[in-house]
Amino acid sequence: MTYFRNNIEELAGYAPGFQPSQTDVVKLNTNENPYPPSPKVMEKVHNITSESLRRYPAPLGDIFRTAAAEVLGIPSDHIICTNGGDDLLTICFRAFCDEDRPAAYPTPTYSLYSVLAALQDSPVIEIPYEKPDWLDRLAQASAPLTVVCNPNAPTGSHVPARKLAELAGQLEGILLIDEAYVDFAEENCIQLARDFENVILLRSLSKGYSLAGIRFGFGIAQPKLIEGLLKVKDSYNVDTVAIEVATAAISDQDYFKANVAAIKAERERMVQELRALDFEVPQSYSNFVLARCVKTDARQIHQNLAEKNIYVRYFDLPGLEDKLRISIGTPEQDMVLLQALQELRGR
Amino acid sequence: MTYFRNNIEELAGYAPGFQPSQTDVVKLNTNENPYPPSPKVMEKVHNITSESLRRYPAPLGDIFRTAAAEVLGIPSDHIICTNGGDDLLTICFRAFCDEDRPAAYPTPTYSLYSVLAALQDSPVIEIPYEKPDWLDRLAQASAPLTVVCNPNAPTGSHVPARKLAELAGQLEGILLIDEAYVDFAEENCIQLARDFENVILLRSLSKGYSLAGIRFGFGIAQPKLIEGLLKVKDSYNVDTVAIEVATAAISDQDYFKANVAAIKAERERMVQELRALDFEVPQSYSNFVLARCVKTDARQIHQNLAEKNIYVRYFDLPGLEDKLRISIGTPEQDMVLLQALQELRGR
Repeated sequence: MTYFRNNIEELAGYAPGFQPSQTDVVKLNTNENPYPPSPKVMEKVHNITSESLRRYPAPLGDIFRTAAAEVLGIPSDHIICTNGGDDLLTICFRAFCDEDRPAAYPTPTYSLYSVLAALQDSPVIEIPYEKPDWLDRLAQASAPLTVVCNPNAPTGSHVPARKLAELAGQLEGILLIDEAYVDFAEENCIQLARDFENVILLRSLSKGYSLAGIRFGFGIAQPKLIEGLLKVKDSYNVDTVAIEVATAAISDQDYFKANVAAIKAERERMVQELRALDFEVPQSYSNFVLARCVKTDARQIHQNLAEKNIYVRYFDLPGLEDKLRISIGTPEQDMVLLQALQELRGR
Repeated sequence: MTYFRNNIEELAGYAPGFQPSQTDVVKLNTNENPYPPSPKVMEKVHNITSESLRRYPAPLGDIFRTAAAEVLGIPSDHIICTNGGDDLLTICFRAFCDEDRPAAYPTPTYSLYSVLAALQDSPVIEIPYEKPDWLDRLAQASAPLTVVCNPNAPTGSHVPARKLAELAGQLEGILLIDEAYVDFAEENCIQLARDFENVILLRSLSKGYSLAGIRFGFGIAQPKLIEGLLKVKDSYNVDTVAIEVATAAISDQDYFKANVAAIKAERERMVQELRALDFEVPQSYSNFVLARCVKTDARQIHQNLAEKNIYVRYFDLPGLEDKLRISIGTPEQDMVLLQALQELRGR
């Protein structure tokens, strides 16, 4: 006998990456930005008043909407603020999926999608990326909610915007493009969110803006969709400090661009270094790489590294058993990792 | 044609209280604490490091769980941290309700419950408090989720813990006791959450701890229920600043007790003053009073006050049309309100 709905009772739940409490570790397992947030963010935090903690937040986070609209060149009514990108994912699955309304997505991808579908008791249509016609198959499935993570996690691959525009035009339901990692790509899909009445874009300040601890993401879509999503979100889903901090962060585009450029340069270096250590590493458009262990056992390396306080991500999932997802760190952190990998290789 | 589920499309959505952006107002409309949070909270905010913003939060908010467990005298595995009390309500409706699993609650009450039920496409069983046997009727309905707001909003009334213990023993489903306002009552139900495997308590730091802006609430229940609720919550639902700040707040019990005592004393004074102005004011166990306008029009008074930058809450709902919900402010704020009410009365 259980008090829970059956779908909840049967669910294993999403397992977030390990978050060690120590700070003297090399933490390359959950795709945090290795550099601190903008100094303007810290200035804002240290100027928070007791009055702003005492009163409820602005329900729509209007100062952020205004600032983001200016930076992105879109109207502010195209924006919904959320408690991290995950909150927007949750809102979308609650708004569009139920037992009669499936979600569709290509795999492997962010493993939260299947958990959110299960929480809605919603069927899923999973199309492997390795099928050459995966986009056509998603179009044919035409689910009430189709999700494409772009750049994709954990592979780091990227689909051109024009292909997703074609998909959006074919779908009868919503196309949610999860752009949590788009700050590290060469292209984004913002124009699709303006042009198509069925496209929602997800953005996050966790990665490109070094604010994983503050929980701030947002959605971009036409106002009619935004209005519907607002009905589903908690009234005060983002707190006052997060709104203030996120506004300061997105307003400092000079800092943001320099930060992102440094990570992309380091990513290219890491791809070369890992390949020299006999890993198979496809091009990444994100702030991590997915490295295939050709001559070694991925799970074993993951464990050996953890014993040295070096954390990377291992997924015990089909197609991922022989791979490690490694976040791009500072050159110093990455050097520690590379040296450890070289030692483990027995050279 | 809509992209949304029908229940979402048909829903009006929850309307949060008006949050004016100015600070030079008398804001008694959304039950914020009129006093600032503990000085230890502000010290914590000003010592936040960039490193703690950069990294993901602790998924379970363990430092808060430990601190709250000590203050409340319960094991820390009885606690789930949530993004305000509303997040726990959302989690519970998602965990226990669907189209075949109704929610039951006495009315009038917090109007979010019916919205959350509608988002789950769940039927509701609403039992008016004015029925003398409302507790028996809830027991007979024995819904998968029964919610009792205690002290109740917007009435300020309170049900003894022993009556809710009796109800918990009769129900086959969950009894969620929403104690968002319990800090201002003479009794709480924490023992029920320890004794009954089907009781969940909701607590909030928005009111008693002056932290509405930071969004922090928590649930108390036996570990088996907590484990199920954790599967439904977003992995990183509470941010690092909120966890730090909430921990500092709950650890400063001396400040908390003095704050609450001041509000309770002022509440008793306000009840007398409002009665002297011909309002009907029942005893309140919360940080607000529900005042019935006997000789005047509540909606009109609400509007006249707003024109003077004095905000109280008016609900255009059956049984509430002739009443105003007034949060307890500082003696200075309350004096401004009382003077305005006296003027409006034409004396």
